[in-house]
Amino acid sequence: MIEEFTEKTKVAVVGTGAVGGYYGARLAQSGVDVTFLMRSDYDYVSRHGLKITSIHGDFELPEVKCENNAVNIGAVDLVLIAWKTTSNMYFQEVISPLLHEDTKILTLQNGLGNTDQLAQLFGADRVYGGLCFVGINRLSPGRIDHSTSGLIRLGKYVSEPDDVTVQVLGDFLAQRGILCEVVESLEHAQWMKLVWNIPFNGFAITEGGVDTAVLLTRDGMEDRIRRVMHEVQTITAALGYEISDSFIDHQISVTWGMHAYRPSSMIDYVEGRAVEVEAIWSEPLQRAKALGVPVPEMETLLREIRLRINQR
Amino acid sequence: MIEEFTEKTKVAVVGTGAVGGYYGARLAQSGVDVTFLMRSDYDYVSRHGLKITSIHGDFELPEVKCENNAVNIGAVDLVLIAWKTTSNMYFQEVISPLLHEDTKILTLQNGLGNTDQLAQLFGADRVYGGLCFVGINRLSPGRIDHSTSGLIRLGKYVSEPDDVTVQVLGDFLAQRGILCEVVESLEHAQWMKLVWNIPFNGFAITEGGVDTAVLLTRDGMEDRIRRVMHEVQTITAALGYEISDSFIDHQISVTWGMHAYRPSSMIDYVEGRAVEVEAIWSEPLQRAKALGVPVPEMETLLREIRLRINQR
Repeated sequence: MIEEFTEKTKVAVVGTGAVGGYYGARLAQSGVDVTFLMRSDYDYVSRHGLKITSIHGDFELPEVKCENNAVNIGAVDLVLIAWKTTSNMYFQEVISPLLHEDTKILTLQNGLGNTDQLAQLFGADRVYGGLCFVGINRLSPGRIDHSTSGLIRLGKYVSEPDDVTVQVLGDFLAQRGILCEVVESLEHAQWMKLVWNIPFNGFAITEGGVDTAVLLTRDGMEDRIRRVMHEVQTITAALGYEISDSFIDHQISVTWGMHAYRPSSMIDYVEGRAVEVEAIWSEPLQRAKALGVPVPEMETLLREIRLRINQR
Repeated sequence: MIEEFTEKTKVAVVGTGAVGGYYGARLAQSGVDVTFLMRSDYDYVSRHGLKITSIHGDFELPEVKCENNAVNIGAVDLVLIAWKTTSNMYFQEVISPLLHEDTKILTLQNGLGNTDQLAQLFGADRVYGGLCFVGINRLSPGRIDHSTSGLIRLGKYVSEPDDVTVQVLGDFLAQRGILCEVVESLEHAQWMKLVWNIPFNGFAITEGGVDTAVLLTRDGMEDRIRRVMHEVQTITAALGYEISDSFIDHQISVTWGMHAYRPSSMIDYVEGRAVEVEAIWSEPLQRAKALGVPVPEMETLLREIRLRINQR
């Protein structure tokens, strides 16, 4: 039962990069039984633990529980998913060993489709989504730097009016130093985040791998960004949710204030890693088409992203 | 019991690219119960099946059993592993659901370390390795072209003098159109294949993504290739196996005769996919170091490969 989240709650963090490493470490620091599933950093972290520098206070976990496969972890009460969406093809094999009948699954991943896939595979009622508004970087194996914010907007995949479980989960996290805001509609929140992610992560790639400051000063770029944002607004309206014009203005002005922010997809692109094309651009586009909403700007952007990635 | 391989033998092919697709299709064509585990090609192949063009006769399987996760396949009698070694981090999660007590595992993968990892995870006595000497390409989803040879050199991970199981497995495959040659020492056979793979796959990358014909005409290249081959020969000697000078001469002359052959790692490199660095170069180098065999040419080659990949 989710009402019983306590220090005895067993948590598995799937994908211990920046996001999974930071939030998992916060839980472990507060005494929660956390096991980290990691691959490339396993050798280092199993010997040296995790070292976090954070605007909310630095800390070190010299010994952490970690495994390099899910079978060795076994069933837990809460699964935090933080790997890149490009690994979602392994959901069934990796998540199955971590589940008992009441295990809850919280995905902190980018974009659309993650909660849907998890719901289809493991049952909708145990699935939660968290949109992370946070600046975190993995500096080297086991070393994570948390530089800005940290808020998670948290929702349940299937929300019902009297359901308090999402609030209970939010409280559990908040009491352990993870700022949470519970949202009524997870789907609405996902699209609100995409208003920023689709254009900024996208154009940062198509412009050759640039930060937001460079991007915004490119000729005509702010207009292109706004046109994409308005398409996302139109899709969201077709789904019955509102995204206001002032929200779009706010996204633009906030980004001017962020200076040289490097969107995660741009970093993936320039470092030669897989880019989350499906979750951030392709899946939203499919939804628009299914709704009959014309999105020519998003189509052009996706085509340009694919071209860039193939030329890399 | 392996002696009982029959048409009732259930086979799972893990990684249905060119190699897995071709050999799996041969087994399915002959009536064996084969299920293909695939990810990116799943949607296409589950609707349209597999189409093989082959020097041993074209054929089509309009309907094949396929799944996009191992949990849905469940336990089988024989697992054929043909995914790239860069996915080996998922061995535990993906292979575990496919095993019953007597399941045998045959890896057809490149390089070193695969059989060792499988033995450690699932027990040494069920692990077999097959070295594929074959030209196969995946033309598009579900379309595979088999252009040259097809021989599998087959060995057991732990070989004992009176053990006939590897011969039984070889007969099972051979009777279904898959040419097999049983080897006494799998380890020896792995190193023999590396004599070619380490230099040719490697320099084809460091020279910018070229085929074997271009490679061999580059100034001083045949000498560098030979020096690497002699290092592999020395490592193998330290392990107690012989690789003769004439074997090396033969590798070079055969390759001159292959004209514009494109090594698999070179294709991975130019197409922006993960390169099997660990299995083909890094693991052999570690073994050399553990044995105290100096391999300066291999060290330089690995350094150059890493540099090339990072600049990609």
